[in-house]
Amino acid sequence: MYTLYSMRRSGNSYKVRLTLAHLGVAFRLVEIDILRGESHTPDFLNKNPSGQVPLLEVMPGRYLAESNAILWYVAGGTPLAPDDRIDRADALQWMFFEQHTLEPHIGAAYFWLNLVKGGRELQRHALDDWMEEGYRALGVMEKHLQRNRFFAADRFTIADIALYAYTHVAHECEYDMNAFPAVRAWLARVAADPRHVLMDWSPNNSAAAE
Amino acid sequence: MYTLYSMRRSGNSYKVRLTLAHLGVAFRLVEIDILRGESHTPDFLNKNPSGQVPLLEVMPGRYLAESNAILWYVAGGTPLAPDDRIDRADALQWMFFEQHTLEPHIGAAYFWLNLVKGGRELQRHALDDWMEEGYRALGVMEKHLQRNRFFAADRFTIADIALYAYTHVAHECEYDMNAFPAVRAWLARVAADPRHVLMDWSPNNSAAAE
Repeated sequence: MYTLYSMRRSGNSYKVRLTLAHLGVAFRLVEIDILRGESHTPDFLNKNPSGQVPLLEVMPGRYLAESNAILWYVAGGTPLAPDDRIDRADALQWMFFEQHTLEPHIGAAYFWLNLVKGGRELQRHALDDWMEEGYRALGVMEKHLQRNRFFAADRFTIADIALYAYTHVAHECEYDMNAFPAVRAWLARVAADPRHVLMDWSPNNSAAAE
Repeated sequence: MYTLYSMRRSGNSYKVRLTLAHLGVAFRLVEIDILRGESHTPDFLNKNPSGQVPLLEVMPGRYLAESNAILWYVAGGTPLAPDDRIDRADALQWMFFEQHTLEPHIGAAYFWLNLVKGGRELQRHALDDWMEEGYRALGVMEKHLQRNRFFAADRFTIADIALYAYTHVAHECEYDMNAFPAVRAWLARVAADPRHVLMDWSPNNSAAAE
């Protein structure tokens, strides 16, 4: 069984939990509070020298980092991970866009405005840039979604999961989503799937609820 | 035949030229000078709404963006793109690391210090952060390369090409590489391949030289 090192309110960690929920794959969850330095202990750095969550133990002692690489691993061979060469490239294109253009801005705004006490003051100089670049990313997504229901392969894939994680909390960190109706419709389509789970879902609280 | 929209001194564009050189695949190259706004003309934005190079026309009218996604496409089915599920995930892990942790810092330092006149003054507030984060990325790579010859699948792959592009110019933008002997040895291994080409190589000047 996989062991996932994850933080409840991390969008990057949520991607992996959401993918595993879609796949119906059981996993053990270890909560890591990065705000308390738990991703920078010697023990954790030994598992992942980058000091980040999520981190997946794919087999005993074998670790995989980087949320979007983990999605390709766990969804490999399923319809969530496109196998066709051009569909795979399209999904990858949007997943690299997510890590390069969306997460560093909307993800950063979410982290500092919602998770870190006093974050707004600490990051005052960076916020304008995050808002501007975040809106630019949302504009690129809006344009694509005006003509497509999903991001790649004409169906729901891990590219949608990767982009959903921070886009669905953009309104919580001051992005005005009114200008992005196609993005909002896509967020609703993703959330309407019966296998969808919320950001704070874990297999632990799911088991407790049953 | 592929058409590649590329900038000669862009590390992200170099990745694609280097991969195509390794594969021996012919392509047409269109030079785009982003410093002159050529990636933000209406015509170019119609091809790539993100306004970035590299951009690959994979077939007439069908475009693929994001350098690392392009590498997976052009190298798909060759030994440069690992096919095994865990090897593929390892290669992807390092390629997402490159776009999220290395390129935004060493790539940014390279761009503003080497390509933009007066860039140092314009980005004075950001440089310390780029240096610190760039060193952190180099440290993670050093640790991996102390025990491995390449980044994934025990062989030279597109993960190495992705990481090589900006790492090989880090010394040109003030990173002191003395603390990273394993990284330097890896850079030399990559450059020693008979199919290796330099950053300013293009199939056009190659043809002219013959």
